[in-house]
Amino acid sequence: MLTQLNKMEEFKRTEIASLGEFGLIDHLTKHVEVKNNSTLKGIGDDAAVLDYKEKQVLVTTDLLLEGIHFDLTYVPLKHLGYKSAVVNFSDIYAMNGQPKQITVSLGISKRFSVEDLEQLYAGIQLACDVYHVDLIGGDTSASLTGLAISITCIGEANKEKIVYRNGAKENDLICVSGDLGAAYMGLQLLEREKKVFAGEKNFQPAFEGREYLLERQLKPEARKDIIKELAKRNIVPTAMMDISDGLSSELLHICKQSHTGCRIYEERIPIDYQTAVMAEEFNMSLITAALNGGEDYELLFTVPLAKHDDISALPGIRIIGHITAPSLGAYMITRDGAEIELKAQGWNSLNEEN
Amino acid sequence: MLTQLNKMEEFKRTEIASLGEFGLIDHLTKHVEVKNNSTLKGIGDDAAVLDYKEKQVLVTTDLLLEGIHFDLTYVPLKHLGYKSAVVNFSDIYAMNGQPKQITVSLGISKRFSVEDLEQLYAGIQLACDVYHVDLIGGDTSASLTGLAISITCIGEANKEKIVYRNGAKENDLICVSGDLGAAYMGLQLLEREKKVFAGEKNFQPAFEGREYLLERQLKPEARKDIIKELAKRNIVPTAMMDISDGLSSELLHICKQSHTGCRIYEERIPIDYQTAVMAEEFNMSLITAALNGGEDYELLFTVPLAKHDDISALPGIRIIGHITAPSLGAYMITRDGAEIELKAQGWNSLNEEN
Repeated sequence: MLTQLNKMEEFKRTEIASLGEFGLIDHLTKHVEVKNNSTLKGIGDDAAVLDYKEKQVLVTTDLLLEGIHFDLTYVPLKHLGYKSAVVNFSDIYAMNGQPKQITVSLGISKRFSVEDLEQLYAGIQLACDVYHVDLIGGDTSASLTGLAISITCIGEANKEKIVYRNGAKENDLICVSGDLGAAYMGLQLLEREKKVFAGEKNFQPAFEGREYLLERQLKPEARKDIIKELAKRNIVPTAMMDISDGLSSELLHICKQSHTGCRIYEERIPIDYQTAVMAEEFNMSLITAALNGGEDYELLFTVPLAKHDDISALPGIRIIGHITAPSLGAYMITRDGAEIELKAQGWNSLNEEN
Repeated sequence: MLTQLNKMEEFKRTEIASLGEFGLIDHLTKHVEVKNNSTLKGIGDDAAVLDYKEKQVLVTTDLLLEGIHFDLTYVPLKHLGYKSAVVNFSDIYAMNGQPKQITVSLGISKRFSVEDLEQLYAGIQLACDVYHVDLIGGDTSASLTGLAISITCIGEANKEKIVYRNGAKENDLICVSGDLGAAYMGLQLLEREKKVFAGEKNFQPAFEGREYLLERQLKPEARKDIIKELAKRNIVPTAMMDISDGLSSELLHICKQSHTGCRIYEERIPIDYQTAVMAEEFNMSLITAALNGGEDYELLFTVPLAKHDDISALPGIRIIGHITAPSLGAYMITRDGAEIELKAQGWNSLNEEN
């Protein structure tokens, strides 16, 4: 998939000014076709028009800024487009809903050519195709500095099926899909290669055997499949979030909003082999990467204890602990039986990066 | 209103890092209360949840970047917040709908303090109060450079009442609310004062007698009142847009999408006295400001000829011309009877400013 995304045609450079703002939007969106019945009117008017009938409407939004959320030295624009869309879909799945439409607003400096934006849009379009989502509008304007991408995703859900963060109950099982920490390790790997070989042209970085880490960082997927499996088995989680800021941070959100505590077990936290090898190589704490790394876009959810067997039968889901009374706090039990209090480190970009 | 908005408390400076990302969002949104029945769940989960029942859902979005869309040397943050919200409401009214919810995403550099963001949010909140709109979510992150504001507005409309850009018919009357060109003149005035007195402290710029121009630039309103009046009189326009990029540009959009031409009359274009005086002082073409100035946020719409008397009876609406066959092109008839072809100059920020 990564290779497929990398097939870029970088020969031509058309200046954006040659198309103008409206011309550019027309050019980038000319292949957009409507896929969902709920999309009555997409691009081309003051607002898009949607018909959700008896369904509830879910809305989520993200603003991604160059230098803060992404680094174009190692992120291809097509991947960036794909990821920007997918992380929004992930928020809708985390409500137990289905993403249906997105709007995309771009702020672009003249460093970017029309072909660059075609790549970005190709990634967004691919994500829309894979997840069956309609691109219904947006806004394109100049930016004095880097690239700014603002995406809003609209989705649908049945009222009785929506899962909030505040429904976790004492003794509920805490579940996680997939594995954690790989996206963070992928980022460390990209950052290292960038630093070590800065300025050296035609350099092939040492990514072999680490494709999974790169894919998790550069081209994450939203867990549509898990939502589908849960629905098929009539399991409605009591609380759910997607893991974008790290397991610790998200779990604390659920505990805070549900007025509960929690216990999770270090040995139960799912971690991929490549993540572990990389942490070793970097001499970093593996469990810290899994707890606080972020950008995993896996689902974190709680289910009643009675669902234990149903959940255990689900491939790709790990039960990592249980919800407790609020007075017991939020702790991880380490392999040697010690209790470590969970902290919301996450990606606090407002502190770290500025 | 301008004076009221200007009462800022600029004594205190709290660093954003002292609150952290989640702390900041909590702090800025703690007074947010839900006003609309359609808002089931606002801030605080992966996505907001809305219930639109049998109504259609309208979605519009805008990305505003410092240095491109606003200049903080002369735009107070509270005004900026107010305007950022209102311009999105305007897009929903332009569909003949009612704005109900907004999401607000901010990218902020450390130049800004918590108090600055409180001002920005105070402006957004004031706009939400005045227009009865709920703030339902968003995203706050660091920015390496200036301020980035991304707003998505969601609104509702009855299916049979939605007005698109593509419904104008031959012989329809072309109507405009309010007056045009004042916001553009307000911008020229602010730019002049900024240039002339750059660096001079305690300078009081020469704004007296030009309050209307400044208000149009700094604190525009969306024409909710016109939408209400049209509904009261059972008038559903055949096509409608809000004028953000200038009359010429918007009219050409309607003609293109409706496959028509148009004739408008210079002498019919509504212009305020202060706008005319300012154009004279600046030695600028008044009609160019009215045609291409932009940021008026007035409504441009077409109605069947049969509605002539109904429309004429409406205060604040001017009939400026009529829709023609497409072969006749899009022209303005000047005061001396010449025909000038309309061009979409608008605010092509991708060409001009970068």
